[in-house]
Amino acid sequence: MRAITILPGAANSVRLDNVEEPAEGDGRILVRTRALGICGTDHEILSGLYGSAPQGEARLILGHESLGTVEDAPPESGFRRGDHVVGIVRRPDPVPCPACASGEWDMCRNGLYTERGIKDRHGFGAERFRIEPAFAVKAEVALGLAAVLTEPASVVVKAWEHVFRIGRRSPSWTPANVLVTGAGPIGLLAALVGAQHGLIVHVLDRHKDGPKPTLVRDLGGVHHTNASSLGDMQFDVVMECTAASAVIADAIRRCAPSGVVCLVGVSAAGRKDEFDIGGFNRKLVLGNEVVFGTVNANRRHYENAARALAKANSGWLGKLISRQVPLSRWQEAFVAQPDDIKVVINFTA
Amino acid sequence: MRAITILPGAANSVRLDNVEEPAEGDGRILVRTRALGICGTDHEILSGLYGSAPQGEARLILGHESLGTVEDAPPESGFRRGDHVVGIVRRPDPVPCPACASGEWDMCRNGLYTERGIKDRHGFGAERFRIEPAFAVKAEVALGLAAVLTEPASVVVKAWEHVFRIGRRSPSWTPANVLVTGAGPIGLLAALVGAQHGLIVHVLDRHKDGPKPTLVRDLGGVHHTNASSLGDMQFDVVMECTAASAVIADAIRRCAPSGVVCLVGVSAAGRKDEFDIGGFNRKLVLGNEVVFGTVNANRRHYENAARALAKANSGWLGKLISRQVPLSRWQEAFVAQPDDIKVVINFTA
Repeated sequence: MRAITILPGAANSVRLDNVEEPAEGDGRILVRTRALGICGTDHEILSGLYGSAPQGEARLILGHESLGTVEDAPPESGFRRGDHVVGIVRRPDPVPCPACASGEWDMCRNGLYTERGIKDRHGFGAERFRIEPAFAVKAEVALGLAAVLTEPASVVVKAWEHVFRIGRRSPSWTPANVLVTGAGPIGLLAALVGAQHGLIVHVLDRHKDGPKPTLVRDLGGVHHTNASSLGDMQFDVVMECTAASAVIADAIRRCAPSGVVCLVGVSAAGRKDEFDIGGFNRKLVLGNEVVFGTVNANRRHYENAARALAKANSGWLGKLISRQVPLSRWQEAFVAQPDDIKVVINFTA
Repeated sequence: MRAITILPGAANSVRLDNVEEPAEGDGRILVRTRALGICGTDHEILSGLYGSAPQGEARLILGHESLGTVEDAPPESGFRRGDHVVGIVRRPDPVPCPACASGEWDMCRNGLYTERGIKDRHGFGAERFRIEPAFAVKAEVALGLAAVLTEPASVVVKAWEHVFRIGRRSPSWTPANVLVTGAGPIGLLAALVGAQHGLIVHVLDRHKDGPKPTLVRDLGGVHHTNASSLGDMQFDVVMECTAASAVIADAIRRCAPSGVVCLVGVSAAGRKDEFDIGGFNRKLVLGNEVVFGTVNANRRHYENAARALAKANSGWLGKLISRQVPLSRWQEAFVAQPDDIKVVINFTA
């Protein structure tokens, strides 16, 4: 079968390979791939900065944002032929720490997890893959291709869950508004889930052309291309999705008393910025404010992500998938275009 | 009666005044002051940097760390003559926001609170004060003068409560150790409460002489005068009590995956430090880590602080009060000495 593979650590090693059918040991459910979403982590892997192949193998099958159709599943699995499924990316360690043992592999404390298409385990970027029922999540057939957004939505749903759990350490905390910085797929999904929670949504993103301002307005949100139009507004929740130093610093300044700043983007380390640490500390202390980071998602978050997508306007979701590329022209998916939001490789086209 | 007063905004205006007996409107319980603890906020007020007098008055009676004996209380108040009491510092707004309305005045969101001895309301630094039962907390008589530590302990108890509420957004989080930076009264009380929670306690403080290293060891903790002796240790909880920029930055670096950094010290703003914002963001995101600030305390925290002090070794607590100054020599309390931990003005001596 065809699969998109890379040689970990080697830039520009990506190619469409012919590989063996998925190993039975990968799981009892056989899935025919419908679509694969591409994200920043894939670009990092393609640049050779990240990623590792399964033990004893040279190449890694890429891909962690999946959508497929069940070809074959045992009756006791809860899945049947024709179901639409999304694969969970992270797997607990063979000898799990307390986090993995309780299903919270997203809160890993020892780094011994594996991740499909990323770390030590083949991904979903092949015509077929196998998966264990514990790591497969049903997607509504009516969602169509938009269900490929389940994985990024799971990251966003976890972020919001933690925002509420943290904010509600104070039972009187009732957030009214959210500032989302960055209108990529994660930012727009964060805005969607914020709107579903009933918050007034503001999105700060430098793109004034293209589909993003309209997508924000379609959620009932306010789109800002410049922080100056935010005036002196403060926000009960700030979802920082750019991972850019200057935006991170400004996001923290925008936090209201008792507010929560959620960092979702993965930035590079090693730069020296000018930053008023004393002012940061003083603001957090006197305002009872929180800054936290979040990564990955566990099964509950995938299931809640599937629900959040099912509740969303399907036309709106469809516009998040700004480009579909057939597998035969897979290379195009990895070349960024100005109006890209989510680029998807369509395995059925 | 005698009272320690200041002219808000004017440095070195502190004096021992003769003032009117406390107004009946201050509360139904009349308290004879036993002791007043002095903290950094008092020093800020004495420097003219902070503090405001009640409306229509020029001077403010200082003092917010109180201990007194009930002289007179109505039967329905739940207090009786001879009870030892501590006054709660903050009062909700006359027209409270949702935080104050639910008793969470420590989570104020509109800044409209008042604070005894600090903001718009006379403090406890007088021979007698009045207080409403809702803002009076009973102290165990057996604690003696150490009950004057209830107010600073309430700040620490709130900090720990929020650490656990935030950390337990992940139910599998079971913290094993804590790093406390700074061994002032807040740091040592944070170490005490950490030890009461069963955590392994490490305290980083530059003083290698004086009583602090022994006080840490008496809790079963490890005292470090230099971060290098921490090696590459990471901590599930970091209680940052110095408010010094370099220590804050290092405290964040010491946080373990899923860990919580709690900022308790009030720093000055306005300096430009070198700080790797991208590295900070990356660490928080990939490690699911939290940095939060906390200030003040509500009634529940005072009550739990009274319990925490009652459980502590009374000899250990007594050593936290490193100097007692009689009211007649009150000025000495405001002149720092090298081995000071908590300095207390004794109103009964």
